[in-house]
Amino acid sequence: MTARFHVPADVPDGERLTYLTNIDRATQGSGRLMLMAGDQKVEHLNNDFIGDDVAEDDGDPEHLFRIASQARIGLFATQLGLIARYGPDYATIPYLVKLNAKTNLIPTAAGDPLSRQWHEVSQIVRLRDSSGLNILGVGYTIYPGSQHESVMLAEAARIIFEAHQHGMLAVIWAYPRGQQITDEHDPHLIAGVAGLVACLGADFAKVNAPRGEAGVLREAVRAAGRTGVVCAGGGETTAEGFLERLHTQIHAAGIAGSATGRNIHQRSLDEAIRLCNAISALSVEDATLEQALQIYRGH
Amino acid sequence: MTARFHVPADVPDGERLTYLTNIDRATQGSGRLMLMAGDQKVEHLNNDFIGDDVAEDDGDPEHLFRIASQARIGLFATQLGLIARYGPDYATIPYLVKLNAKTNLIPTAAGDPLSRQWHEVSQIVRLRDSSGLNILGVGYTIYPGSQHESVMLAEAARIIFEAHQHGMLAVIWAYPRGQQITDEHDPHLIAGVAGLVACLGADFAKVNAPRGEAGVLREAVRAAGRTGVVCAGGGETTAEGFLERLHTQIHAAGIAGSATGRNIHQRSLDEAIRLCNAISALSVEDATLEQALQIYRGH
Amino acid sequence: MTARFHVPADVPDGERLTYLTNIDRATQGSGRLMLMAGDQKVEHLNNDFIGDDVAEDDGDPEHLFRIASQARIGLFATQLGLIARYGPDYATIPYLVKLNAKTNLIPTAAGDPLSRQWHEVSQIVRLRDSSGLNILGVGYTIYPGSQHESVMLAEAARIIFEAHQHGMLAVIWAYPRGQQITDEHDPHLIAGVAGLVACLGADFAKVNAPRGEAGVLREAVRAAGRTGVVCAGGGETTAEGFLERLHTQIHAAGIAGSATGRNIHQRSLDEAIRLCNAISALSVEDATLEQALQIYRGH
Amino acid sequence: MTARFHVPADVPDGERLTYLTNIDRATQGSGRLMLMAGDQKVEHLNNDFIGDDVAEDDGDPEHLFRIASQARIGLFATQLGLIARYGPDYATIPYLVKLNAKTNLIPTAAGDPLSRQWHEVSQIVRLRDSSGLNILGVGYTIYPGSQHESVMLAEAARIIFEAHQHGMLAVIWAYPRGQQITDEHDPHLIAGVAGLVACLGADFAKVNAPRGEAGVLREAVRAAGRTGVVCAGGGETTAEGFLERLHTQIHAAGIAGSATGRNIHQRSLDEAIRLCNAISALSVEDATLEQALQIYRGH
Amino acid sequence: MTARFHVPADVPDGERLTYLTNIDRATQGSGRLMLMAGDQKVEHLNNDFIGDDVAEDDGDPEHLFRIASQARIGLFATQLGLIARYGPDYATIPYLVKLNAKTNLIPTAAGDPLSRQWHEVSQIVRLRDSSGLNILGVGYTIYPGSQHESVMLAEAARIIFEAHQHGMLAVIWAYPRGQQITDEHDPHLIAGVAGLVACLGADFAKVNAPRGEAGVLREAVRAAGRTGVVCAGGGETTAEGFLERLHTQIHAAGIAGSATGRNIHQRSLDEAIRLCNAISALSVEDATLEQALQIYRGH
Repeated sequence: MTARFHVPADVPDGERLTYLTNIDRATQGSGRLMLMAGDQKVEHLNNDFIGDDVAEDDGDPEHLFRIASQARIGLFATQLGLIARYGPDYATIPYLVKLNAKTNLIPTAAGDPLSRQWHEVSQIVRLRDSSGLNILGVGYTIYPGSQHESVMLAEAARIIFEAHQHGMLAVIWAYPRGQQITDEHDPHLIAGVAGLVACLGADFAKVNAPRGEAGVLREAVRAAGRTGVVCAGGGETTAEGFLERLHTQIHAAGIAGSATGRNIHQRSLDEAIRLCNAISALSVEDATLEQALQIYRGH
Repeated sequence: MTARFHVPADVPDGERLTYLTNIDRATQGSGRLMLMAGDQKVEHLNNDFIGDDVAEDDGDPEHLFRIASQARIGLFATQLGLIARYGPDYATIPYLVKLNAKTNLIPTAAGDPLSRQWHEVSQIVRLRDSSGLNILGVGYTIYPGSQHESVMLAEAARIIFEAHQHGMLAVIWAYPRGQQITDEHDPHLIAGVAGLVACLGADFAKVNAPRGEAGVLREAVRAAGRTGVVCAGGGETTAEGFLERLHTQIHAAGIAGSATGRNIHQRSLDEAIRLCNAISALSVEDATLEQALQIYRGH
Repeated sequence: MTARFHVPADVPDGERLTYLTNIDRATQGSGRLMLMAGDQKVEHLNNDFIGDDVAEDDGDPEHLFRIASQARIGLFATQLGLIARYGPDYATIPYLVKLNAKTNLIPTAAGDPLSRQWHEVSQIVRLRDSSGLNILGVGYTIYPGSQHESVMLAEAARIIFEAHQHGMLAVIWAYPRGQQITDEHDPHLIAGVAGLVACLGADFAKVNAPRGEAGVLREAVRAAGRTGVVCAGGGETTAEGFLERLHTQIHAAGIAGSATGRNIHQRSLDEAIRLCNAISALSVEDATLEQALQIYRGH
Repeated sequence: MTARFHVPADVPDGERLTYLTNIDRATQGSGRLMLMAGDQKVEHLNNDFIGDDVAEDDGDPEHLFRIASQARIGLFATQLGLIARYGPDYATIPYLVKLNAKTNLIPTAAGDPLSRQWHEVSQIVRLRDSSGLNILGVGYTIYPGSQHESVMLAEAARIIFEAHQHGMLAVIWAYPRGQQITDEHDPHLIAGVAGLVACLGADFAKVNAPRGEAGVLREAVRAAGRTGVVCAGGGETTAEGFLERLHTQIHAAGIAGSATGRNIHQRSLDEAIRLCNAISALSVEDATLEQALQIYRGH
Repeated sequence: MTARFHVPADVPDGERLTYLTNIDRATQGSGRLMLMAGDQKVEHLNNDFIGDDVAEDDGDPEHLFRIASQARIGLFATQLGLIARYGPDYATIPYLVKLNAKTNLIPTAAGDPLSRQWHEVSQIVRLRDSSGLNILGVGYTIYPGSQHESVMLAEAARIIFEAHQHGMLAVIWAYPRGQQITDEHDPHLIAGVAGLVACLGADFAKVNAPRGEAGVLREAVRAAGRTGVVCAGGGETTAEGFLERLHTQIHAAGIAGSATGRNIHQRSLDEAIRLCNAISALSVEDATLEQALQIYRGH
C-alpha cells in the first residue's frame, strides 16, 4: 500500500526503512491517515473538555489515551508533556509529537498569531530512542498571513527536514490567520496553503474544511501534490453528519484521510472508540458510509 | 508513597532513581508538595519584606534560609543567586532554582508581561553536581495570554524536558496575565492553564487560587491529570484563615499540596517555622485542621 | 565558455572544480543562465496555478518537474520540500534550492516584507551529498528598502559565502520593496540593488524588469560587474512578446540570461517545453529571435 | 578580612582560591570595595571629559589609567577596548571589565533603556589568561523597570554565573529606569533593586544614592544581604562634601564601599590621586572623616 | 614607525607579529592610515556611481579595484562579495572587509538605522587563510543614537575582539544617527563617538567631519586616545579643496589619516590614482600641501 508513498530525498538511506515503517503504521498500510488530534488543551485550554455537550470523561487528559489505545487510529497527536507522562502506560499508541502550540487568549484582532517551537527535533529523537515509545512523527502549526509568518515557516521547514533525517513523519497544521485574512475558509486560499505545505516538504497538510461542498477541496488536494491533505474535523457535530462529510471529502475530493479532535474526545470512551473505528474504516479501508455508520452504531 | 507518581518518559533510565529520590524528598514521601516560595525579592522587589505587618527579620534574605532550614518543607524555591550565596551554610535545605523572574515595575496596562530564562538547565546541573547542594528541581513562570506567551511556553517546555533528562523536577508557575485577560481568577481559565502545564510536562503547576469556594479548583485538578496542582498562597491573611482554606482546597478539590511565600516569611522566624510545619502537616500528613492549628499554635 | 566566469575567492581550492562544473551545467557551458523559477507556490500561493488562462496541468506541482526534466533549462529553482518529494523521480534536473519564501497575504501597506531563511546551507549540502540529487546551488530573496532589510542582507551574505565554500552557486532575487519604496521598477533603483547583490557576492542577481525600454537595464548590468544580471519574467504575456523582450534585454543591455516562472509553467507541458527551449536558445546559444520563435512554434 | 566574604556555591572548588584572591585584592583585604568607575566615555560620551569644571587632563583616556595606577584603588572599571589598549602599560591596575554600555543619546521619554552584553565571559577569561592582565572581575548594568528589562536580567544572571565559574567577581550597576519609573531615587525602590541584584548572585550592587539622608540606604543594605551595596558617586560636588557623604553612608547605613567616577577623574592627576586615597581610607581602612580629609588635602 | 602603535592586549602573543605587519602595511609604515572606502554600492546603491559629475569608469565595480591596485593606498575597504569576486585578479591590494552595510532607502525620519553583521570574523579568517588574499582587517559601522544602537555596539565590540584574536585590524565607522540626533556634525558629539570607538577597542575610528574649522577635530582626536581618528571624505568637492582640508585636519587636529570614497572613485582612473597618491603623501609622508598638489596635478 505504501507503494503509493514517495519517500522524500531528505530521508537518508539508513532511515528509509524506519520512515516506511512509520508511514505504514501511521496509515495502517493504506497511505491514508486517520489522525486523532489531542492538542486542544493548549489551543483551547479547558473549553473543549467540559460543558453540557461534553462527556464527563473528557475532563481528565487520560481519556485521550484511553481512546487512542483502544480504538483503531493511525496517529495520536499531542504535546510532549502528556506523551511523556502517560505514554509508558499506553505504549501501543502510535504518537505524533506536536511541536508548537499557543493559547486562544489573544484574539486575532488584538495581535496576529505566533506559535513557536517547543522542542528540538533532536530532543524528540532522544525521547523516542531512550523511552521505546512509539513516536512516529512530529507536527507543527503554521499561520500563513500572520505578521509572524516568517518565524513559523522557517521553523516548520527545518523541523520537517530534521524529522525526515531521522525517519520520522511530519504533519503541518496550516491555518491562514491574521489581521489581513478576511476569510479563513476560502477554498482557494486553503488550496494555497496546502501547496505551501508541500513546498515545506511535509508528508501531510492538515487544513480547515473550506466553505462550500466537499468537492471544493479538490483544488487543495491537487495543489499539494504528493503531500496528503487531511481535513480538520472542526467543532461538535453529529457523528452521522461528521461521517457523511468525511465520506464525501474522501470520495469527491480525494483527501488523504482525516484529522479529528473534539468530535472524538468529547464523547464517552465507548462512543469515541466506535467513532474512531468508523472514521478509520472510511479513511483507511474504503468502507462505505453505511458500513462506517454500522461500526459507529456498534453493528 | 511515590508509587503515586508516574515517572515521565523523558526521564532516562539512568536518571530514574535520581528523579524518584527527588520526588520523594520534595514531597516528603507523600506525593504531595509543600513548597516555600522565596522568589518575591525580584517579583515584588522589597515590597513584601518591609512594612508594618512584616516581621523585622524579613528584611534580611537570610531569614528565608533560616526558616527553610529549620521548618519542615518540601522545596524552597528561589533564584540561583541567593542559593549560591547562602546555600553552603544551609546545605540541608531542598532547593528548587527558579529560572526566570521579572519585577513588578511595569503594570500590565503598560505592557504584557515577559519573563525570560536566566540560566540554562545545564548550568543548574553543573552547580548541583559541583557544589553538592541539595538542588532537586527547577521552576519557571509562564504568563498565558501575554503577547509574549510564545517565548515563555517554548522556554518552559524545553526547561522541563532538560530537567527531566537530568532527574530533576520541574514546577511551573502559571498565571494568565496580559491586556487581553480580564479575570485572572476565573476558575475555568485557571483550569485551562493547569491543563496547559500538563501539556508542557511539568510535575507540578502552581496556580492562583480561583475566585469562589475551594471546590472550584476541582476542574483544574482534573484538567491537569497526573500533573499536581498547588495553589499560590496569595497575600497576607491570618494563619488560621490560611490553614482553613488550604485544608478545604486539599479535601474538597484534591490539590497536590501548597506553595506559600509571603504568608510564611513575613512572620518572625519562630512563627514562620510553626506555620510551615502546620502547612506540611496538612499537605503531606493528612492532618486534620485541628491538628494543624495546634502545630501552628505550638501545641 | 566558463572561462568567462571568475571563480570567487570564497570557493576553496578543493571545491573549485565542483563550482566550475556547477556553473558549466547551470549555464549550459555559456556563462549565461536559463533559470526556470518554480517558487510561486509559496510566493503567490495557488494564484498562479489555476485560472482561465492557466493550463489545467499547472494545478499539480509535478507539472513543474515534468517541464524541467524534458526541456532544456539551466536551473530549476524551487523549495526544498518539492525537490525532496519529486526529485528522486526527476534526477536529471539541475536544481537550485530556494532558501527563503513568504506568502503574498500581507500587502506592503500593512507591513514591510520579511522572508527568512528556511534551511541552513549545511543541510542543503547534506541533502545533495546523501541523495545524489543534482543540486547545483541555492537561492534567496532580499527586499532592500524593507524595514527588515538588515535581517535579509545578513542571511543572504552568509548563505552565499557558505554556498561557495561547498562549491555551490548562489542566486539572489533582489526586489526593492517596502513602505518607503515608491517605484519598484525605477531603473536606477534596480541598478542599485544589482550592485548590492554584487557586494553580497552572488553569482547571479535576479531583478525585476525596470520601467522603460530594455536598454535601461544597461545601468544594472554595469553596476553588477561580474555578477550576472537576469530578469524576472513577470506576469503572463504572449510567448512572442516575451521572447522579443528577452532578445532585446540580452542584446541591448547584455543581461546574463533569464529567469522565468509563470510564463513557462502556466502553459501546457508541450508548449512550456517549447518555450523553455526557445528561451534557452536565446539565452545560451545566441540564437536570433527568428530562430527562437521557430523553436517555440515547433518549427 | 575576607573571612567576611561568603564564597558563593557557583565558584567551583578549583577556582575558589582565585576568587578569594580576587576579592582580597579588589577589597584591599577589607571585604569592602573602592571602585573607580571609568565607563562614562560610552555612557555620557565626551560630556564628562571636557568643560569648565573639568581638568584639562581628563580629555585623554590615559588620564584614567594614570590615576588608577598611582592611586590606591580596589577596582578600575572600564570597557574592554580601553583595557586592551592601555593595560599593557598599566599592568598593576586591578581591572574590572564592564560588559555592557549604552550612550545617553536616547532620552528615556523617547524609549526605555536597553544595554546589551558586548563580550562573552569566556572572551574575558581568554584575555585575562593570555595577556596576564590583572582582570579580577566583570561588570554589567541592568535597568529594572525598562520594557527591555528581561533581556538585561537574563544576561546579568548568566554573566555572574560564568564569572564565578572562572573565579572572577561580578558587580552589577542597578538603576531603575524607564517610562514607568517616576522616581529613580526612591529609597524603597533602590532597596528593591539591591535585593534583586542579590538574587542575580552578584558580589556587589552599585546603586544610585537615594533621596534623603544617608541612613535611608540601610533598607537597601539589608535587602541585599551578603551582596555588598556600593553607591554611585553621582555628579560633580566638592571633594569635602563627597567624602562627608561617603563617611555617613558607610557609618550610618553600612554600605560596602564606594564606586566613584566623575568625582575622581574630572580632577587633575595629583588631586584625583589624593581623592582616591582619601576614599580608600574611608572605604577600606575605617579612617575618620578628618583623616580622610587630611589625605585629600595632602596632609 | 609602527612603534607608535600600541598592540592591544587582545592580540595574543602568537598573532602579534601578524598584527604589527598588518598595521605596518595598512599605515605604510607611518602609523597613519590612508583608507580608500569602497562600500558605497550598498550604502548609496548606484547613486555615487553614475551622473554628470561622475567619471564613466565608475559605473563598473572593477574601477575600484583598478584604482586600489595602481595607487598608493593603505587599505581598500569594501564588502566581501566584491573582494571575493575581483580579489584574485588584484592580489596586491591591501583589503579591509566591511562587515555590515545597509541601503539608504529608509530615511531616518521613517526609522532609526540598523545595519547588521553579514559575516562572522571566523569566516573572514578562513577566506584570508585559504585564498591568500591580502586581508588585513575588518570594518563595521555603528550608529550611536539609533534605537537599535545596542545591537550594533555589541556586534562591533565582538568583531574587534575577534579580529584582534587573529591579528587583524579593526576600523569602526561611527556616525551618530537616529530620530533623536539633531546635529550629526556637532564636534562635541563626534568627539563623543570617537571616544566610544576607543572603548570598543578599534584601531581606527572613521568619523564624519564636524561642523566648523578643522581644529574642532582636536577634541575627537584627544577623546579617542590611542585609537586613531580618520575623517570621512564626504561628498564631491574639488580635489584641491579636499587636499587642503585634509592637510589642515592632519596638522591642526592631529588626525591619524584619511578615509576617502566618492572623492576618489568618481574620478577617472588616472585622476583617481593621482589623487590617492596625493592623499597618501599628506597622510603618510608628511608632505606639504604644495607637494601633494603637485602629485595630484602629475608634477
